[in-house]
Amino acid sequence: MEMQNWKRVLLPYNQAVDELKVKFKSIRKEFIALDEYSPIEFVTGRVKKISSILEKAQKKNIPLEEIEEKIEDIAGIRIMCQFVEDIYKVIDIIKARDRKDLVVVEERDYITNTKSSGYRSYHMIIKYPVQTGHGEKWIFAEIQIRTLAMNFWATIEHSLRYKYKQNMPKNIQERLNKAAEAAFLLDQEMAEIREEVLKCQESFQEESNL
Amino acid sequence: MEMQNWKRVLLPYNQAVDELKVKFKSIRKEFIALDEYSPIEFVTGRVKKISSILEKAQKKNIPLEEIEEKIEDIAGIRIMCQFVEDIYKVIDIIKARDRKDLVVVEERDYITNTKSSGYRSYHMIIKYPVQTGHGEKWIFAEIQIRTLAMNFWATIEHSLRYKYKQNMPKNIQERLNKAAEAAFLLDQEMAEIREEVLKCQESFQEESNL
Amino acid sequence: MEMQNWKRVLLPYNQAVDELKVKFKSIRKEFIALDEYSPIEFVTGRVKKISSILEKAQKKNIPLEEIEEKIEDIAGIRIMCQFVEDIYKVIDIIKARDRKDLVVVEERDYITNTKSSGYRSYHMIIKYPVQTGHGEKWIFAEIQIRTLAMNFWATIEHSLRYKYKQNMPKNIQERLNKAAEAAFLLDQEMAEIREEVLKCQESFQEESNL
Amino acid sequence: MEMQNWKRVLLPYNQAVDELKVKFKSIRKEFIALDEYSPIEFVTGRVKKISSILEKAQKKNIPLEEIEEKIEDIAGIRIMCQFVEDIYKVIDIIKARDRKDLVVVEERDYITNTKSSGYRSYHMIIKYPVQTGHGEKWIFAEIQIRTLAMNFWATIEHSLRYKYKQNMPKNIQERLNKAAEAAFLLDQEMAEIREEVLKCQESFQEESNL
Repeated sequence: MEMQNWKRVLLPYNQAVDELKVKFKSIRKEFIALDEYSPIEFVTGRVKKISSILEKAQKKNIPLEEIEEKIEDIAGIRIMCQFVEDIYKVIDIIKARDRKDLVVVEERDYITNTKSSGYRSYHMIIKYPVQTGHGEKWIFAEIQIRTLAMNFWATIEHSLRYKYKQNMPKNIQERLNKAAEAAFLLDQEMAEIREEVLKCQESFQEESNL
Repeated sequence: MEMQNWKRVLLPYNQAVDELKVKFKSIRKEFIALDEYSPIEFVTGRVKKISSILEKAQKKNIPLEEIEEKIEDIAGIRIMCQFVEDIYKVIDIIKARDRKDLVVVEERDYITNTKSSGYRSYHMIIKYPVQTGHGEKWIFAEIQIRTLAMNFWATIEHSLRYKYKQNMPKNIQERLNKAAEAAFLLDQEMAEIREEVLKCQESFQEESNL
Repeated sequence: MEMQNWKRVLLPYNQAVDELKVKFKSIRKEFIALDEYSPIEFVTGRVKKISSILEKAQKKNIPLEEIEEKIEDIAGIRIMCQFVEDIYKVIDIIKARDRKDLVVVEERDYITNTKSSGYRSYHMIIKYPVQTGHGEKWIFAEIQIRTLAMNFWATIEHSLRYKYKQNMPKNIQERLNKAAEAAFLLDQEMAEIREEVLKCQESFQEESNL
Repeated sequence: MEMQNWKRVLLPYNQAVDELKVKFKSIRKEFIALDEYSPIEFVTGRVKKISSILEKAQKKNIPLEEIEEKIEDIAGIRIMCQFVEDIYKVIDIIKARDRKDLVVVEERDYITNTKSSGYRSYHMIIKYPVQTGHGEKWIFAEIQIRTLAMNFWATIEHSLRYKYKQNMPKNIQERLNKAAEAAFLLDQEMAEIREEVLKCQESFQEESNL
């Protein structure tokens, strides 16, 4: 495919990422403005690089003309949360808009089912309608929802995997596993803090209701 | 209404303005990326200030609880074009997405029907669905479409009207009228250049087709 | 020069444009926040495209290794004003920071000395220190200061010149000249409105001082 | 102090935060563009809320007219890194521009000297010259440099401290300490991964030099 054609193909994905970023950032702004706790800490987005699209197509044996129906993460949104619990609130918020401004196509729960690499995250595949200057176009997008600790680990794992491709040295692989455990531990400590805080609030409210 | 309540009321309007700005800016980006002429030069947006909402409500005798159904420009988007012709292209682009991501409610053509003040612009009132963290909410928004020259004049007229309220001195009113004419003249000169350019292109293409 | 080298050369120019845009936009924000009239209406910036740099280098016979010392508008900032008078206020603001965060190298007054094409604008060439991750680097930047009407005309003239290169048809050239006159007329009408407004304010203040 | 005066006081701080954010984000952009590893992961900034300034002034017995000389974190920039090692690279980058576009006034190393609360971060107090529309003004700013894990913990600690003020329940304080340890552990695991990776690179380069 020539550069100008790639541009034409990727434009609606860029537009979708821009729109979805604004939309999910608005959710956070709303909670903050109302002095409520926001389950969303921050939001990033990206369109997959052409080289990565090609690599994935080759690996999965996808012909070039089927890329748009078969590769579901050309548009990617990442939503970071403080607590594991928040992830499930974000999932509910997204499901509540199913068949409104987006359609939820699939969910992949890598939190309950941690990947063998140690990767944890909740993925939702959506279909999203983009209004272009040349008409409407429905595209796939992947939303990844994760805690800051999951994100931290995944960022580093990704850059190492990218560096070593298939040949990650065994000692580094082992280190990564230990780091995944440390990240998991941090999330657990945080969850316990959260519960403790909620318990304190309740007992405080019971007292003041006496 | 208390400040915290105003915040709650205005939040979806802020969100709508953010989303609509991104959406219309994308249209421009798309044309530019494809090396096509963009009928959109730039896009701005704003949520009406609380003081201006109150002023308008009082002037039009609208009770506070009906503000959201009766004041249609709490959310405002402004789209600037180079040529008068472009305005009609933008109108078509917006109409093409009617009942997709927005609903067109009303159109007011102050270009054919210049206001007595000299004001020229094309207004579209739309309904827009905002997905908040607490559910879907449909709001009104006003889209103003105008040339750079129309915008230039309107900006200055607005600040003078704001300064003098009902008591604009007669000599300044006369000057404003002359400036409105100068702005109109500029748009006409531009339209003629545009036609000349198109004519040249056609005759050039005919020649190269021989 | 290879792509990766161009990137390396242009990076500090991109950084300078980002910084200068923020800096001049801040000036506007400041006036607005203090409820004072802002002489700056809006600010844009761009880094010259590689193809345009090469074209200019060829036309002016500049060898590739002297591009950075000889081409002074690789980084460009454009400041738009409502009134011609505002341009001179902006010039004063920039001169006041000479030898603080920038150095003024040269000024070109195409307002008093309109170009034969009809082009009007005030240009300032500055030197600006960029702090990169690899140390300090001083680069040239060009600041263009103009009214909205000047900008409007220049935008169109630029796209036509780009379209026709050296061969602009005579009738279009004539149309452009007429449009330049219309833009000039609009600026004059605006200046007269402004004076009228100021006169009204003075006589009003004299009255209230009686 | 009245609202309008607060605005006037805080304006240069807002401007400084905007400028410094752009400047440090540029550092990251530069590394990324050159395909080099960026020691900066992301950058945030904020101006202290008026209520927090007043609270700090009262607590530290600072009279209102000395706020600007005595409170050094009215403007705050936060730089997040992946690895503890990166923090020291960022410190070097900042020191390299000392007496160029900023002046380093003080450094506080809460990484070597962890606070009793468990807080870890590297703080630099700088003086920064802001060019306002009304002349130059030097202000203080605080730069906090930390890993993602440090930031994660600090964010939660801050919201709990804000919630409980002086009366944080003992069990929650204990939980926070355990979380601080978990965050520290995660940073250590990450540092070891990093070293392992560097070692692998070296042995690889030695081999390829044979």
